[in-house]
Amino acid sequence: MLAFLSPLRRGALSAHATPLAVSVWPSRWTARNLQTASTAARGTFASLRDEDLQKLRQILGAKNVLTPQEVETEELARYNRDWMGKWEGRSAAILKPASTEEVSLVLKYANDHNLAVVPQGGNTGLVGGSVPVHDELVLSLLRMNAVEDLDQRSGIVTVQAGCVLENLDQYLAQHDFMVPLDLGAKGTCTIGGNAATNAGGLRYLRYGSLRGNVLGVEAVLADGQVVNSLSALRKDNTGYGLPQLFIGSEGTLGVITKLTILCPPRPKAVNIAFFACADFDRVQRTFALARQKLGEVLSAVEFCDRSAIDFVLKREAGTGVRDPLEEKHPFYVLIETSGSDGDHDEQKLHNFLEAAMGEESTVLDGVVAADETQARAIWRLREGVSDAMTTAGYVYKYDVSLPLPRMYELVEETRARLKEAGVEDTAKAAGYGHLGDANLHLNVTSLSGRDDKVHGLLEPWVFEWVSQAHGSISAEHGIGQCKPNFLHLSKADSAIQLMRTLKSALDPKGILNPYKVLA
Amino acid sequence: MLAFLSPLRRGALSAHATPLAVSVWPSRWTARNLQTASTAARGTFASLRDEDLQKLRQILGAKNVLTPQEVETEELARYNRDWMGKWEGRSAAILKPASTEEVSLVLKYANDHNLAVVPQGGNTGLVGGSVPVHDELVLSLLRMNAVEDLDQRSGIVTVQAGCVLENLDQYLAQHDFMVPLDLGAKGTCTIGGNAATNAGGLRYLRYGSLRGNVLGVEAVLADGQVVNSLSALRKDNTGYGLPQLFIGSEGTLGVITKLTILCPPRPKAVNIAFFACADFDRVQRTFALARQKLGEVLSAVEFCDRSAIDFVLKREAGTGVRDPLEEKHPFYVLIETSGSDGDHDEQKLHNFLEAAMGEESTVLDGVVAADETQARAIWRLREGVSDAMTTAGYVYKYDVSLPLPRMYELVEETRARLKEAGVEDTAKAAGYGHLGDANLHLNVTSLSGRDDKVHGLLEPWVFEWVSQAHGSISAEHGIGQCKPNFLHLSKADSAIQLMRTLKSALDPKGILNPYKVLA
Repeated sequence: MLAFLSPLRRGALSAHATPLAVSVWPSRWTARNLQTASTAARGTFASLRDEDLQKLRQILGAKNVLTPQEVETEELARYNRDWMGKWEGRSAAILKPASTEEVSLVLKYANDHNLAVVPQGGNTGLVGGSVPVHDELVLSLLRMNAVEDLDQRSGIVTVQAGCVLENLDQYLAQHDFMVPLDLGAKGTCTIGGNAATNAGGLRYLRYGSLRGNVLGVEAVLADGQVVNSLSALRKDNTGYGLPQLFIGSEGTLGVITKLTILCPPRPKAVNIAFFACADFDRVQRTFALARQKLGEVLSAVEFCDRSAIDFVLKREAGTGVRDPLEEKHPFYVLIETSGSDGDHDEQKLHNFLEAAMGEESTVLDGVVAADETQARAIWRLREGVSDAMTTAGYVYKYDVSLPLPRMYELVEETRARLKEAGVEDTAKAAGYGHLGDANLHLNVTSLSGRDDKVHGLLEPWVFEWVSQAHGSISAEHGIGQCKPNFLHLSKADSAIQLMRTLKSALDPKGILNPYKVLA
Repeated sequence: MLAFLSPLRRGALSAHATPLAVSVWPSRWTARNLQTASTAARGTFASLRDEDLQKLRQILGAKNVLTPQEVETEELARYNRDWMGKWEGRSAAILKPASTEEVSLVLKYANDHNLAVVPQGGNTGLVGGSVPVHDELVLSLLRMNAVEDLDQRSGIVTVQAGCVLENLDQYLAQHDFMVPLDLGAKGTCTIGGNAATNAGGLRYLRYGSLRGNVLGVEAVLADGQVVNSLSALRKDNTGYGLPQLFIGSEGTLGVITKLTILCPPRPKAVNIAFFACADFDRVQRTFALARQKLGEVLSAVEFCDRSAIDFVLKREAGTGVRDPLEEKHPFYVLIETSGSDGDHDEQKLHNFLEAAMGEESTVLDGVVAADETQARAIWRLREGVSDAMTTAGYVYKYDVSLPLPRMYELVEETRARLKEAGVEDTAKAAGYGHLGDANLHLNVTSLSGRDDKVHGLLEPWVFEWVSQAHGSISAEHGIGQCKPNFLHLSKADSAIQLMRTLKSALDPKGILNPYKVLA
């Protein structure tokens, strides 16, 4: 790959690739990491009785119903706690159905008996949407993980909701297709959870949102009714966009049990390059040049600031991941191309580099991955930020869309605010994210653990700042239990009202994922 | 363009380009073209009274309310009849609001007084969805046609619903962007109507459905409530996918008044090629080769059979459009590439041609357009089919998705069926459509005018055939008043039930576009 670009490669990347996926369940749970539960009062739902348990065991088989009375706390924790350890509920029972029919029977029973339910996939969400707030039943879809069908002509796959994203992608790779979605948690998150939360991630720039790629959905409504709106056709314009109701509704309108997804061909040639820029203005100009010169083969444009990279380098010390450039720089841009003709793509990348390093001078230094190991190590620098900042202390995470020119202003103003309050030595802010989608991740890690003062400095200030800048308070993570009280900052009252109308129509008793999305 | 390919070009295309857009309003209305109205009985809506008219004139201004008492029949016909002349209502009044507020006031009044309303854009639909069945008020959005904003960095445009698609595209062209949608009726149809019907068209293969490209919608509900779910952000994951409710619901859940759309950059290089194939198997293999060799620059793969081309050549006699190939062939494939680097695209096209004409031998003959005039003339051969078959007699149109290998079987079996009934001399079947999306248009033109015998041979037989082949009875045209009774052939009962739940929740009195979509 791109041998003709080697003069540019001043630094050296380790040959030791590190796995990109997050581990199945972090083993670093300590009390200091646990945030207080959501402040929403428990709804007037019934409490689980012995006779309910008996019935649920009849439906699912005894071993597929876990209760705190019988199971070790640590096993239960994986269903009750989110992966950052910020939110934790006390579910009365964890339910593990193996089929749509079982999901239907469980929900019908829950609805009839006024029991609240949290649907759960890989439980990798970042807004506390997939864990109980009080004692809701957890409905885990992990046993429903089969790929049911692939049409090798069209690339349309039919898959059960609990299939892990990476497993689905590896299955598709055998047939030269790919999931039009990729994200750091791919080794744990499930495709049903991805759809339920309308996950964004690293392939969004090229392949767009799941709203465009998910062709059909089978879902179970709150009362147990199974809605079959699966379609294995690229085009089907018969009636309302029912799958869209469930995409992005975070399990509050129904439980997705199966999906049909239009998958693009796996690209034959992939190039990864990593550049340093002197300021955010040049970061933006580098992106504009990339769009112009790389056109239809551009598949990702990501960025990090130095602070983010420092966290990764510290966390990954000893693993072989290191700074590929000789000097430190304030900003980094990662560019990926994916195309069907390697020679053409390299030529386009060459034209881009000539402009970016020559006449336009938007980049100071850079490397192009010479093989897949280097490519993975470069991606690790970007993908490792979230994990590195979560591990270094207690992290306050914000996921926002902003008009591109104002995207980094928020990071700078956050730093100024922390400094003014005298906490800049323990509260470290970093900015990174999906530049191509104007999606900023602002993380603030409190090195000394959870800190209410820092929290008070950040919220609701960040959300209000984003709102006045006409941004979105959640670009891709969703609302969950974290942001219902701030929803009005990104949604008009009329839209929130319509959301309530839909919720009442589909789940009149409100048993599905209560306390989430809508306040 | 592609000078190196000229040896392939055996035929010659006229230099006289013909306009691609359909005329604003065909002038060929004759009684023989009018089909009987839908058989749905009039609902228990109120009839328009003088005091209602007075109030509506107060809201809109007297000249923006047209009634049969004051206006020439031919002017009213453009709102009451669909463009094929198949369906015609007798609207009590045509209403022409100029703002969202006026739409809101009109709907609130109509809902309070139990008056039924048909929202209408360019009225180019093919399923009778945009004309009244009985005396419904027509709410024409044509005066709300402004482009309000374009973010030149992101390509996100904010536009009023009544803007004509071609006007929007021309506006965007000035800024090097394009609408991710193109269809034959572009000179008349409106972007709001396109979204309301989830229109497909010629750019679908490359840019996907409007569900992925429309970022936000402002819509007015049946009771006059304005729902602002506009978002001018590429990524915004705050709450339910409200715009999706209105996309594809054909005006039965709300009236779209404004949209935000993510528009791609206009391609710098476009190539058009036109090939002849001996059979449908080779048509499919040509498509597979195109996907393989043209990859990310492939932007359209269309097909026609000889019968379709014969209709166009007859209709266009004297206009300069003629067969670009020397001999007649059973099948034709049109391929378009769009990319950012003309040299690379030509090279990819060359590689494709080498395979298609060489080792793989999937094509018999072909031409590549040498300039834009030739490109338009080639497109005219494909785009002109619908108009040519409509003008030649009374046309029965079907728009279906099918598994690719079975796509042309339907045309062959239709011909056999017409022959068996002895009507093959007057009832001519042709197949064409969007091969890349497995979307077949089957047209049967009855040369002697409307023919109930032909109609009886075709329906419900075509729909049932498609259903048993696991296809969709409407790939892109929608349901309208034409197909509600066949909806169950493409949608599960559970899905239709959920559609009814949504309709009841959003429009409890059912005043919005009654008799359409749901039976």
